[in-house]
Amino acid sequence: MPVTSGRYGYLGPEATFTEAAARRLPLLLGAELEPFATVHAAIDAVRAGEVAGSVVPLENSVEGSVNATLDELIRGEPVTITAELLLPVTFTLMARPGVELASIRRVITHPVAEAQCRTWMNKTLPEATVSLGSSTAAAAEAVARGVTGPAGEVYDAAIAAPIAADHYGLTPLAGDIGDDKDAVTRFVLVTQPGRPPRGTGSDKTSLVAYIRDDHPGALLEILEQFSTRGVNLTRIESRPTGNGMGRYCFVMDAEGHLTDERVGEALMGLRRVCGDVRFLGSYPRADGIRPPVGRGMSNDDFRDAAAWLDSLRHA
Amino acid sequence: MPVTSGRYGYLGPEATFTEAAARRLPLLLGAELEPFATVHAAIDAVRAGEVAGSVVPLENSVEGSVNATLDELIRGEPVTITAELLLPVTFTLMARPGVELASIRRVITHPVAEAQCRTWMNKTLPEATVSLGSSTAAAAEAVARGVTGPAGEVYDAAIAAPIAADHYGLTPLAGDIGDDKDAVTRFVLVTQPGRPPRGTGSDKTSLVAYIRDDHPGALLEILEQFSTRGVNLTRIESRPTGNGMGRYCFVMDAEGHLTDERVGEALMGLRRVCGDVRFLGSYPRADGIRPPVGRGMSNDDFRDAAAWLDSLRHA
Amino acid sequence: MPVTSGRYGYLGPEATFTEAAARRLPLLLGAELEPFATVHAAIDAVRAGEVAGSVVPLENSVEGSVNATLDELIRGEPVTITAELLLPVTFTLMARPGVELASIRRVITHPVAEAQCRTWMNKTLPEATVSLGSSTAAAAEAVARGVTGPAGEVYDAAIAAPIAADHYGLTPLAGDIGDDKDAVTRFVLVTQPGRPPRGTGSDKTSLVAYIRDDHPGALLEILEQFSTRGVNLTRIESRPTGNGMGRYCFVMDAEGHLTDERVGEALMGLRRVCGDVRFLGSYPRADGIRPPVGRGMSNDDFRDAAAWLDSLRHA
Amino acid sequence: MPVTSGRYGYLGPEATFTEAAARRLPLLLGAELEPFATVHAAIDAVRAGEVAGSVVPLENSVEGSVNATLDELIRGEPVTITAELLLPVTFTLMARPGVELASIRRVITHPVAEAQCRTWMNKTLPEATVSLGSSTAAAAEAVARGVTGPAGEVYDAAIAAPIAADHYGLTPLAGDIGDDKDAVTRFVLVTQPGRPPRGTGSDKTSLVAYIRDDHPGALLEILEQFSTRGVNLTRIESRPTGNGMGRYCFVMDAEGHLTDERVGEALMGLRRVCGDVRFLGSYPRADGIRPPVGRGMSNDDFRDAAAWLDSLRHA
Repeated sequence: MPVTSGRYGYLGPEATFTEAAARRLPLLLGAELEPFATVHAAIDAVRAGEVAGSVVPLENSVEGSVNATLDELIRGEPVTITAELLLPVTFTLMARPGVELASIRRVITHPVAEAQCRTWMNKTLPEATVSLGSSTAAAAEAVARGVTGPAGEVYDAAIAAPIAADHYGLTPLAGDIGDDKDAVTRFVLVTQPGRPPRGTGSDKTSLVAYIRDDHPGALLEILEQFSTRGVNLTRIESRPTGNGMGRYCFVMDAEGHLTDERVGEALMGLRRVCGDVRFLGSYPRADGIRPPVGRGMSNDDFRDAAAWLDSLRHA
Repeated sequence: MPVTSGRYGYLGPEATFTEAAARRLPLLLGAELEPFATVHAAIDAVRAGEVAGSVVPLENSVEGSVNATLDELIRGEPVTITAELLLPVTFTLMARPGVELASIRRVITHPVAEAQCRTWMNKTLPEATVSLGSSTAAAAEAVARGVTGPAGEVYDAAIAAPIAADHYGLTPLAGDIGDDKDAVTRFVLVTQPGRPPRGTGSDKTSLVAYIRDDHPGALLEILEQFSTRGVNLTRIESRPTGNGMGRYCFVMDAEGHLTDERVGEALMGLRRVCGDVRFLGSYPRADGIRPPVGRGMSNDDFRDAAAWLDSLRHA
Repeated sequence: MPVTSGRYGYLGPEATFTEAAARRLPLLLGAELEPFATVHAAIDAVRAGEVAGSVVPLENSVEGSVNATLDELIRGEPVTITAELLLPVTFTLMARPGVELASIRRVITHPVAEAQCRTWMNKTLPEATVSLGSSTAAAAEAVARGVTGPAGEVYDAAIAAPIAADHYGLTPLAGDIGDDKDAVTRFVLVTQPGRPPRGTGSDKTSLVAYIRDDHPGALLEILEQFSTRGVNLTRIESRPTGNGMGRYCFVMDAEGHLTDERVGEALMGLRRVCGDVRFLGSYPRADGIRPPVGRGMSNDDFRDAAAWLDSLRHA
Repeated sequence: MPVTSGRYGYLGPEATFTEAAARRLPLLLGAELEPFATVHAAIDAVRAGEVAGSVVPLENSVEGSVNATLDELIRGEPVTITAELLLPVTFTLMARPGVELASIRRVITHPVAEAQCRTWMNKTLPEATVSLGSSTAAAAEAVARGVTGPAGEVYDAAIAAPIAADHYGLTPLAGDIGDDKDAVTRFVLVTQPGRPPRGTGSDKTSLVAYIRDDHPGALLEILEQFSTRGVNLTRIESRPTGNGMGRYCFVMDAEGHLTDERVGEALMGLRRVCGDVRFLGSYPRADGIRPPVGRGMSNDDFRDAAAWLDSLRHA
């Protein structure tokens, strides 16, 4: 990974869940962080070398389109995933200092946050009205700056990421008010292509497989390249490649690291049966899980088999 | 499909691509349309019988989270897809009547639209600055109402869906200004579960397969239920079922109709090997494609095989 | 099974392992048994209605070609397997009454028996010479009748099936003298096609699948018809169909009975993807094993899935 | 292949189809040929280094058990197939010089030959009786030597392989009298293990795969090791490994040569997922067919994929 600078980008605005994720990534400790308005802008800055990497949402994003991230990985100049992070999604109700919970009549937040906090709001602040903004951070900012709505109304509080309270000088009035206590968003650090971080025994490998012909069984053929080598998939998503809705590719996360023999052989198999394969990186799993390697599928098993074949060929 | 009323919902606000899609669906001609702030709200209104159905984005949405739609289909009270529609995504630059293209200095739009129209903007209006709003419709509304920005600035024009010009009394200054001329968004009409529309010979069947155990090969096992019966998939996406990131399901679109024998047998196979299966509907394909049925997989072939088995069993 | 008479055939000559198998089959208790010179003759007699059925070797035959049986099942007028029997292959050294082991100098037997008893012979009768005959029964007969060899030599003893001692009035001098104490031959009772015996919960189903085109993956496609329905195979053999060496079929034994839902659906699947399928019968397993039915593959699971599909189709 | 001598064995007796095959094998031109009474003896002589190789039947044998050959390949000290030969099976009616066709009343032959020539015999010599001997060669010998039957009867003619006429000084009276004009037997030359003959572009690779556990899908797992690498099978046969009837192995012929990358990778895959794999040799196809290599499966494709993987690993 060619680190071109100590500056990293992320999907903005400031004080959203994505910034919170970027601040937690050990690789980015002490780095200068810069928000970008769109995933496209954040990743293009990586391609242009303006930042060393960018943090973007890849799964279950509360705000921002995950598809935008997928499409950047699928199309354009290749980039690579170097790290992933799972962030619990917890919503906080926040107001200007001195404002009390009981006095809140008008709340602003992002539509997704509104939906996820409705149960709590109905129970705790049944009289309050909720307005919608373009992001949870924009909502917090509107409260902090006293921005008024179209009819001149003032917002008493915002529902936003905990990080927004600090950022905008607001006071948290209630935390973790979302319905889904297990909600988690997955973020990834995207960098220019390069040698992936060393395998840890708990790794994931991401890739895009572009099918050669759109025939029945094309996906099965691709999956067999993995199963034959005992490589498990943790995620798969078909995506149009951009030419209308017709031609598909598959974005996949597999267990294991590029340097694992089973992963390497599966990648070579894909390379042969697919129209194209884009390697998106090998990186440590955020969940730290070390799934057992299937019988016959360890590096030792591959080496033993290679030695056996060699002995047959050179008998 | 129990039509409880002539009212239908859609993901709002008004004058977005989703409203445009709803207005084009033949099934909804003359229906009263009501915008909802979130996909969740739009689909919950279906569940509650407040509307007869709701139109929401399912693939490649410019605005609004497609994952929100998937998660509504995966979780909660079951609902069904009754129709689909593919809408070309074309962005229009629009201003108040009398404003000329050359005089535009400040534009407002949604972040995704901003990214997709950047090439055109750089070429045509290189001096203009672009502000971001929560939706393309909100941007058009801000222009129409003369809403000012945080620093008191006035927006000269909006980039929005063509439908927004009519809706907000704006004048289109330039159409189809996005980079991706083939961009298409897929919308679906969601209704309460019921008997699907009659097969047309060009149909799709959507479903969710919840895996029973998270073992390697679980996905392969599911796909074989389709391939063995000659049923082709046009889309697959793995999604967490909501319990942390751990347990997965697969949302799939298959070619064919519930009443096709091959589709029926594949569904029964899934029902047996999966933890659960949710039928999401059979409906006419928006692209009108009639893919050839594989050799041995027609309804006649199934009937012939059933008659043969019967002759063996009752010899 | 249309029993045309109480007469049954078997691959002769008399007093071989095949006659021993026929005498042990419960279905044939008290039946009149007739030896045929070849498998073809024995099975043609079934086709012609001359006998109600014939017992022939199907696996691991000591004498007689198992391929001959397979080819009769593959080609010509269809016949059916109604029962199977596993017979331990035990060789007995036998001589005329009064002859003692120590005095034996010249032994006659079938080549296969000679090979399998060589260890015992070398140890026990190292001085004896062994001549070869066309069957173990012919060897026993030669000893009984005092037939002389080409050079006028007399045979002191024969190695044959235990049944031959009784049949030819010889005295067993040593039993179970073969090297492979676990050797077992599988015999089947072949009858005219008809409704198979009732399922017992421990059944086998035999069939021939003739591939439609000789394309790579043809066998895989066939096997998936079984695995998708959780039907395990206990035996598979590719055989040319008779037109040169070019076109193949597969003779297979599957676990389960024609009336099991999973077997029925697999058979229908084969019927659709194969050029032709010949059902060779469902019959009780000779080993009495009741393999567990895979999860989701019981008759109840099939019925539940069918009811579910029905509820979707008639919602 | 360590040629220990210029002597080769074959399944005897002399003057059978197997000797005819051995005499046609280019590799054995001018070699000294020795008959063995059984396949076991012929192959054990190879193991002991008494002969440089032995010719035995492997498929569709008229005489001698093909299973005996398979079992020698499956069990005991490993041996290798170095060449194969397809021999048309043509039966000849032969008599002592001076004997005329019309005068023939008593014919002797092997049971399989009797069955295959019955149509011709019924038409041409309807009055003749046919006695059975232990081999076609033994039948020819009996005619040549004037050996009499049990009741003192004399045999006027024998049905045997054409080679037997020369060998025993008999006169062919009618050739190619069998029913199946396309009948072909496959013979193989078995030698001690060693480096296989160089690939010709039209090669076969034989092997035995011993399954690790007898679980449903075990065979499918094995076949996927081939199909994933585009390797087609031309033959498969399940065989018990010798411990009762319970544990199975699969004897397989695959298209391609040990030195083909796709074959090598498939072999390594088998080695990992099977309990054991026995390589039985790569050798030129007797039919000379050069099947097309699947897309993505040529040696160049494998090399390209390996170079690509290497570039990823060492970026």
